[in-house]
Amino acid sequence: MHSAAAEQITDKRLLRGARTRQLVLRQAVDLASLEGLGGLSFGRLATDTGLSKAGIQTLFRTKEALQLATIEHARRLFVDSVVRPAQEQPEGAQRLRALVERWIDYAVAPLFAGGCFWNATLAEFDSVPGPVRDALLATKGAWLAALADQLQRAVTAGEVGARDADLVAFQIDAVLSAANTALRCGDPAAVDKIRRSVAHFLA
Amino acid sequence: MHSAAAEQITDKRLLRGARTRQLVLRQAVDLASLEGLGGLSFGRLATDTGLSKAGIQTLFRTKEALQLATIEHARRLFVDSVVRPAQEQPEGAQRLRALVERWIDYAVAPLFAGGCFWNATLAEFDSVPGPVRDALLATKGAWLAALADQLQRAVTAGEVGARDADLVAFQIDAVLSAANTALRCGDPAAVDKIRRSVAHFLA
Repeated sequence: MHSAAAEQITDKRLLRGARTRQLVLRQAVDLASLEGLGGLSFGRLATDTGLSKAGIQTLFRTKEALQLATIEHARRLFVDSVVRPAQEQPEGAQRLRALVERWIDYAVAPLFAGGCFWNATLAEFDSVPGPVRDALLATKGAWLAALADQLQRAVTAGEVGARDADLVAFQIDAVLSAANTALRCGDPAAVDKIRRSVAHFLA
Repeated sequence: MHSAAAEQITDKRLLRGARTRQLVLRQAVDLASLEGLGGLSFGRLATDTGLSKAGIQTLFRTKEALQLATIEHARRLFVDSVVRPAQEQPEGAQRLRALVERWIDYAVAPLFAGGCFWNATLAEFDSVPGPVRDALLATKGAWLAALADQLQRAVTAGEVGARDADLVAFQIDAVLSAANTALRCGDPAAVDKIRRSVAHFLA
C-alpha cells in the first residue's frame, strides 16, 4: 500500500474514532444528568447509541476514564452554551446578568436531558473523594470564579455597591442550583425566583 | 396455649419487628444520604445490618416501599434534631436563626453519614416523577414552609423589614443546600457563608 493511501485510511479511522467518541459522550452527558455518573456503563451507552459495547470500551478503557471524559464534555458544552455567548456583553453587571440569563436557558431548555449536570453529579459524588469529584469541583469552581469575577468588575466600576464578590457568587449559584431542582420537579416559578433573587443580590 | 401467653408472644414479635425496622431504616437513611435512594437494596441492607435479606424483605415488601419508609424516617430524625429544638426559641427572627443553626449542626455533625438527606436524594429523583419524588418534595416543602412561616412572623413583628417570605425562605434553603455540598467536599468555610448570607437576607 502506498504511504499516502495508508495515511488516508489512518486519518479516516481517527476521524471515525473521534466522531464515535463525541456521539458516546453526548449521550453520556444526558444520561449522567438524569441518573448520575454512576449510571454510566459501557453496556448502557452501547444500548442507547446503537454502537458496540466493545468499541465503546476500547475508546474509554475504564469507567472512571469515561466519567472524567463525560465531565470534560459537559464543561465544553456548558461553556459554549452559557459562558461564551455572555462574553458578547460588556464586562461587569451586564455580563453577570447575561451569564444568569444564559444559565436559565441552559436549565429550562434544557441543554442536558436531566437539567444541570453539576447538580445531578455533585450531590452524587460530594462524599466520594477522588479524581471524579476533583474534576466536578474544578469545573464548578471555574463557574463560581466567572460569576465572582464579573461581580468584582461591577463593584470596581461602581455599577453595584461594595460587597464580597465570592460570597454573592456563592449565593447566586446556590439559587441557580435550587431553581434547577424546582424546574425538574415542574415548578416554572423557579425562573422568576432566580431573577428576583439576582436583582436583590445586586441591588 | 392460654390467650394471655399468646398475646404476649405476639407483642414480643411485634416489638422485635418494630426494632428491626428501626435498625434497618437508620442504616437506610445513612446509605441513601451517601449513595442515594437507588443504592438501597434488601441485600445491601442485610450485609450492612447483619440481618437476613428475607427478613428485611418481609418487613418492607418492595424497594419503593423501602424508599418511602426511609424518607419518612429521615423526616422524623430531621424534625427531632433541627425543627423541635428550635421551637424552644420565641417565634420569628430568633426561631428562624435557631432553625438555621440547628441545620448547620445537622450538616456538620453530620446527622446522616452523607450529609443532607434531601440534597442527596432530590438531585437523584428530581427527573423521576412518582411517589418517591412526591414524598421528597412534600418533606422539603414542609421545611421551606417552616422557614417562610418564621420569616413572615419576623416581618409582622417588625423584627425585619417587609419582604417576600417565600422568596427569602427559598434563598436561605438554597444557600444551606449549596453549603452542604461544600461541606461534604471538605470546605469548612461554608458554615461562615451560611451565617453571613442569612444575616444579609435578614438585614
